[in-house]
Amino acid sequence: MKTASHHEPRSPIVGVLGGGQLAQMLSQAATPLGITISILAPDLASVLPGLREGVVIGDWNDPETVVRFCQHVDVLTLENEFVPPACLNAVEASGVACFPTPASLRLIQDKWTQKRALLAAGVSVVACDEVKTPVDVAEFAHRHGWPVVLKRRHLGYDGKGNATLRSADEIPMAWKRLAGPDHGLYVEAFCPFDRELAVMVCRDVSGQTVTYPVVDTVQRDHICHIVRAPSQLAPDQVALARERAVAAVIAIGGVGCFGVEMFLTAEGEILVNELAPRVHNSGHYSIEACACSQFENHLRAVLGWPLGDARLRAPAAVMVNLLGQADGPGHPAGLAEALSVAGAHIHLYGKARSMPGRKMGHVTALGSTVEEAEAIAAAAARSLYFGRRPA
Amino acid sequence: MKTASHHEPRSPIVGVLGGGQLAQMLSQAATPLGITISILAPDLASVLPGLREGVVIGDWNDPETVVRFCQHVDVLTLENEFVPPACLNAVEASGVACFPTPASLRLIQDKWTQKRALLAAGVSVVACDEVKTPVDVAEFAHRHGWPVVLKRRHLGYDGKGNATLRSADEIPMAWKRLAGPDHGLYVEAFCPFDRELAVMVCRDVSGQTVTYPVVDTVQRDHICHIVRAPSQLAPDQVALARERAVAAVIAIGGVGCFGVEMFLTAEGEILVNELAPRVHNSGHYSIEACACSQFENHLRAVLGWPLGDARLRAPAAVMVNLLGQADGPGHPAGLAEALSVAGAHIHLYGKARSMPGRKMGHVTALGSTVEEAEAIAAAAARSLYFGRRPA
Repeated sequence: MKTASHHEPRSPIVGVLGGGQLAQMLSQAATPLGITISILAPDLASVLPGLREGVVIGDWNDPETVVRFCQHVDVLTLENEFVPPACLNAVEASGVACFPTPASLRLIQDKWTQKRALLAAGVSVVACDEVKTPVDVAEFAHRHGWPVVLKRRHLGYDGKGNATLRSADEIPMAWKRLAGPDHGLYVEAFCPFDRELAVMVCRDVSGQTVTYPVVDTVQRDHICHIVRAPSQLAPDQVALARERAVAAVIAIGGVGCFGVEMFLTAEGEILVNELAPRVHNSGHYSIEACACSQFENHLRAVLGWPLGDARLRAPAAVMVNLLGQADGPGHPAGLAEALSVAGAHIHLYGKARSMPGRKMGHVTALGSTVEEAEAIAAAAARSLYFGRRPA
Repeated sequence: MKTASHHEPRSPIVGVLGGGQLAQMLSQAATPLGITISILAPDLASVLPGLREGVVIGDWNDPETVVRFCQHVDVLTLENEFVPPACLNAVEASGVACFPTPASLRLIQDKWTQKRALLAAGVSVVACDEVKTPVDVAEFAHRHGWPVVLKRRHLGYDGKGNATLRSADEIPMAWKRLAGPDHGLYVEAFCPFDRELAVMVCRDVSGQTVTYPVVDTVQRDHICHIVRAPSQLAPDQVALARERAVAAVIAIGGVGCFGVEMFLTAEGEILVNELAPRVHNSGHYSIEACACSQFENHLRAVLGWPLGDARLRAPAAVMVNLLGQADGPGHPAGLAEALSVAGAHIHLYGKARSMPGRKMGHVTALGSTVEEAEAIAAAAARSLYFGRRPA
């Protein structure tokens, strides 16, 4: 950080690669703390409302552009883990503080490397192995049984870059679709889970961690749909999930907020699925439900400031994602109806256009039970419609 | 509003005259609701961080500039009630929606007219009268006893434009200081109050109101210093204060949020002191302490949207203002220490420079009691220092 030469206290500048909703919510947490957010984004159209004040237009896939951007920030962070390796190397060589560190990002970007790091640290994950040829897939299935999931090591998200295979017959077509010169693959046992869990862990440069509550998540079509806090699992399972999440973040040397996605298997085993090296959709509820949101704690961590209180301050909180229903304007119909639902906190991201399945916003509600909170959040979410309605 | 001609839902534009901390906090509430805030301010330097995205540079004392600004907004509002009469007339003539209405603003800007409107509606206020000459002051004191407070009808705030007179001897000098061709005066009985109270009332265009909790306020040197929610008064007095606040806002035809300042006299009487036709320092605690903050409810009201829940969602909340201690940078020293106080919500306004007594930010804490919340907020506030420390 460039603070040593400054005698007067001044507003620190946090650079963010990308100007989407995660950067937007980081910025909403930054302003009241006197932090200036500066966004690097390829064009102004991709930068959401609230972020255009300190924007630098440039391609964050270009190492030179990123290094130039870093010269005017105190610390660099990101809202998207898919930063090209050449950029990570350039950032590292430039000496700018970057959290998560390029080393952590490299471990996470390659999901097979990520799994190995977790396994090496004794964190339970679904059985998996590297595969170099289609024959390796068949052999893995022979050892672990069908079905198996063939996955790309890089750039997979929201279910993209995966194939579930039920028999050896399905290997060739999946291999053809997924493999390629830039796409190493690995294979996992199919995990018939009972429940999906997530935990946000925030870790500072000194290794101190705060842990947000373990939450139950509901995915639809591989996209986060509902988050229920706290998890309704038994206390000992919740404690175990929390421990595993912290161990996972330590295993990859994380600094800042990390989203840890986990499965509860049919056998009652808790397995870490994967890590997101950033603030995460499963932690949005913390804006209203915790004294210090994931966004504020991420900023505190990357700036070397004390971490804040991550406990729930209501008995329960539920977040429901608002997904685009059709192509059309990004501002929803039904807003007045949604606002008439008492206790619903509506967050619209202000994207210019809606597309089916696109994350357009979310609704959070607090309650004395998860059921109560979910009824409020779901009622508001139901009132909103993103996209042009069929005539 | 210019919505009739639009077939697709779109982000409404709320114009705000002024770019200070009240506009900043309005903007923080606006973005998640898909509302675009556009600021009219005389220069970029006066516009706080977070507001520079939609800023229009221009003098809001100039009627033509204001009318031109109104052409691109759906509704106009303000963070400062001292809009010149010529501008109010021009806004009215232009037909743009403006809340509070120019009519309400005229009633409030002239404090003597404000008092008469409250009296006409049966709202209890401190004994007061118009004064045309120094002799009128002496006659008022003869009827009501010394001391009396001589006040300017216009442009008084934070104790400026007032003089407390203990005897007839003090009249000439005070008259000379306060009176002038643009400064009509009025006089009030001196009110030795036990406690100062405030209530935020939000009223929509249809006349529906929501009322925030009655709070105890502590002023130092006529500037709001601490706000304690809820008021520790007896329930029947709280109910009376709330009733009077609502009656006062109805009396002046308020739409949007209004801060109603009140006294509890030594005799146990609750008197309305004055109204602020806008979001107000005594309501900042609502950002964390209520499901729907005063800022969000103000936006809902001026846009004709349903009002939100204004109840406390913790047993108690306390806000402590952060005032500049010396000239110097606007970013405080001691931020890391302040952030180490668990549960303290720090709000820095990001002003470029600190000056003694200038409002630089505030801290809010929730608690199970007012005492608990105040201990947290005060501890964080104590750690912060605004201005250059003496060498």
